Amino acid sequence: MISNSLPLDAALRTRAQRVIPGGMYGHLNVARLPPGYPQFFARAEGATLWDVDGNAYVDFMCAYGPMVLGYGNREVEEAAAAQRALGDVLTGPSERLVELAEKLVGLVSHADWALFQRNGTDATTLCVVIARASTGKRKILVARGAYHGSAPWCTPHPTGTTAEDRIHLVHYDYNDVASLVAAAQSVEGDIAGVVASAFKHDYGKDQELPTPAFAAAVRRLCDESGAALILDDVRAGFRLHLGGSWETVGVRPDLAAYSKAIANGYTLAAVTGSDKFRDAAASVFMTGSFWCGAASMAAALKTLEIFERDDSISRMAALGQRLRDGLAAQAEAHGQVLKQTGPAQMPTILFADDPQVEKGRLFTVEALRGGAWLHPQHNMFLSTAHTEADIDRALQATDGAMAAVRKSFGRD
Amino acid sequence: MISNSLPLDAALRTRAQRVIPGGMYGHLNVARLPPGYPQFFARAEGATLWDVDGNAYVDFMCAYGPMVLGYGNREVEEAAAAQRALGDVLTGPSERLVELAEKLVGLVSHADWALFQRNGTDATTLCVVIARASTGKRKILVARGAYHGSAPWCTPHPTGTTAEDRIHLVHYDYNDVASLVAAAQSVEGDIAGVVASAFKHDYGKDQELPTPAFAAAVRRLCDESGAALILDDVRAGFRLHLGGSWETVGVRPDLAAYSKAIANGYTLAAVTGSDKFRDAAASVFMTGSFWCGAASMAAALKTLEIFERDDSISRMAALGQRLRDGLAAQAEAHGQVLKQTGPAQMPTILFADDPQVEKGRLFTVEALRGGAWLHPQHNMFLSTAHTEADIDRALQATDGAMAAVRKSFGRD
Repeated sequence: MISNSLPLDAALRTRAQRVIPGGMYGHLNVARLPPGYPQFFARAEGATLWDVDGNAYVDFMCAYGPMVLGYGNREVEEAAAAQRALGDVLTGPSERLVELAEKLVGLVSHADWALFQRNGTDATTLCVVIARASTGKRKILVARGAYHGSAPWCTPHPTGTTAEDRIHLVHYDYNDVASLVAAAQSVEGDIAGVVASAFKHDYGKDQELPTPAFAAAVRRLCDESGAALILDDVRAGFRLHLGGSWETVGVRPDLAAYSKAIANGYTLAAVTGSDKFRDAAASVFMTGSFWCGAASMAAALKTLEIFERDDSISRMAALGQRLRDGLAAQAEAHGQVLKQTGPAQMPTILFADDPQVEKGRLFTVEALRGGAWLHPQHNMFLSTAHTEADIDRALQATDGAMAAVRKSFGRD
Repeated sequence: MISNSLPLDAALRTRAQRVIPGGMYGHLNVARLPPGYPQFFARAEGATLWDVDGNAYVDFMCAYGPMVLGYGNREVEEAAAAQRALGDVLTGPSERLVELAEKLVGLVSHADWALFQRNGTDATTLCVVIARASTGKRKILVARGAYHGSAPWCTPHPTGTTAEDRIHLVHYDYNDVASLVAAAQSVEGDIAGVVASAFKHDYGKDQELPTPAFAAAVRRLCDESGAALILDDVRAGFRLHLGGSWETVGVRPDLAAYSKAIANGYTLAAVTGSDKFRDAAASVFMTGSFWCGAASMAAALKTLEIFERDDSISRMAALGQRLRDGLAAQAEAHGQVLKQTGPAQMPTILFADDPQVEKGRLFTVEALRGGAWLHPQHNMFLSTAHTEADIDRALQATDGAMAAVRKSFGRD
């Protein structure tokens, strides 16, 4: 049971208010979460996170995705440390760069080559730049409401951007072939690329896996127009299919963006591409001071090796299903209607008839007090470091939380 | 003496050609350097870099800036490792975030707050976004030829970008007050910000420190128009003045972008700002999966502590001056006219009357063979890990290189 007050967290927030605008920034800002969520953490191990006041949580956010084999995974840490002892960010790359590109080309079905960056946004942006360089066209089709990063061209909160930053975006609705066709027709002859997320994982919405018909329609549109099919696999990459998330629907992209889980928390992003876009990729200039850091690449090599060796995806899916089944039973017992959507290893949990997320916020903050860090609106993540005991401990917390929802809102 | 052939490097290049477009990307691509430069490195320690064929070089690029206290600096490595053992990229930030923001606010003269990113380009882009959010204006004044990153709005190689990416940029010439005033007048009433590098360090050009008159004119323009004075201190930050590079000319920016040297090679960038821009900074959304990684922040805290404790800037300037004086004497002895520009700790070395950089390329490749990694056109960097013996060893190499230039091109 977590204490209601978090005095050290509160003290840190006071200090942060002075030196950080608004006290915190970006997606890790807990301002949109219910009161009671800790802002600052002291340490982590496996799937457990400790806040600065010493409370432990089973972590179902996994750092919003990067943690996939457990915080402090021994094998990954040793691989990165061994490389770091030789060198990390140098005046040129190391052999790890070539090895990692070879590894991705071997693993990712569509990939003939790879490039490396530091942010998921770097990778999605580079895909768009390569698509334009290859086609000489300008328009980029993106799904309405999808998140592809926080650069001015794609940020969901355009404060401080200009209209021109997004002037060449054209919107379609995910899984809606007619809207895709209409979007394409509206800019016929000027389409550089179509960006699609691995699946629909918009904030606060039920998740949707891609339908085979939709994925095939995107592929067909790109084949006919010469545009690049850009798969945004930043969030889902290596949690659905090691060959690329659209292997699940039998469609290969031209370009794909990876980050988050690729190196178990080490800072890295990647673009993979097919031969058709190789020359364009060689013709563009995007770079960064740290983009060839060898320690993150060594961490990625070990992470990918473990994914293959341990069938990590099946393990995460099974753990997610255990959580999903347990929650479904609890909802049933407490007379609640839950909407559990998306892959079991990347679950979103919403309550039916909860437009203000009042049930969801009460549920998650009560689960938090019981020691389970769940998000009321964002998709969550499983890791291979979660144990059945972790899931069951979390389910104890959610049982109490579900009872609290019933007590406040009654049966559905 | 370095061998003429680099068989292991050549073998890696062959492998890289298959899986990386063009064989390499970005600023670490040696394609623009003379043949003979190794592309791949095996390890580094202090100021010494070893290529994959086992040749050692005194490194005057310092990873293009990030290395400032030596590769593998023990104190920085220990601080980062200790934090990593607790946690790095988590579901929220650690106390290191607050400590580092407090540290920058204490150290950087104009700073009332700080935000953290992963690339220098993230930092310059965020400054522009904050400037626009604060002013409600669109235009950004930038110096012609200056490098502010590789995102579509600022990349020097616009392949794959659109005209609209750069439509709100207006150019002036660095250190030219009249051109600055003219640029401002051309978009009067719509100026969001003026970006200025710490000093003029354009590729292949003589470097220029900012004149006090120019810096004062930028400040005056921003004060009169309400625009943000954005100092791009990504490359020079913490190598000229710990309070910010324009402390040297007595002008304080509103926003400043840092990266490279801030954490001795750990991946980190920062924006610092004044109170006037605090609300705007809180209103924008830019984020990344790894932006709150605590290990890089622990590395930065230790790096900044060492800068203060050891007067690192004076040390680097003295080492740079030793190199500069030695090169000047060699040039004189060999009848060559060298243009040595910029701060001694960030030197650019060009030959007079060398428009095709023939002398410069011969000089640097001969120095390379003697064991000194110099760049023929880019500014270079000193670190505190360079020793007098390193400089003198490099000067032995450059003496032979200067003789080679005289032999091929005669006395100037």
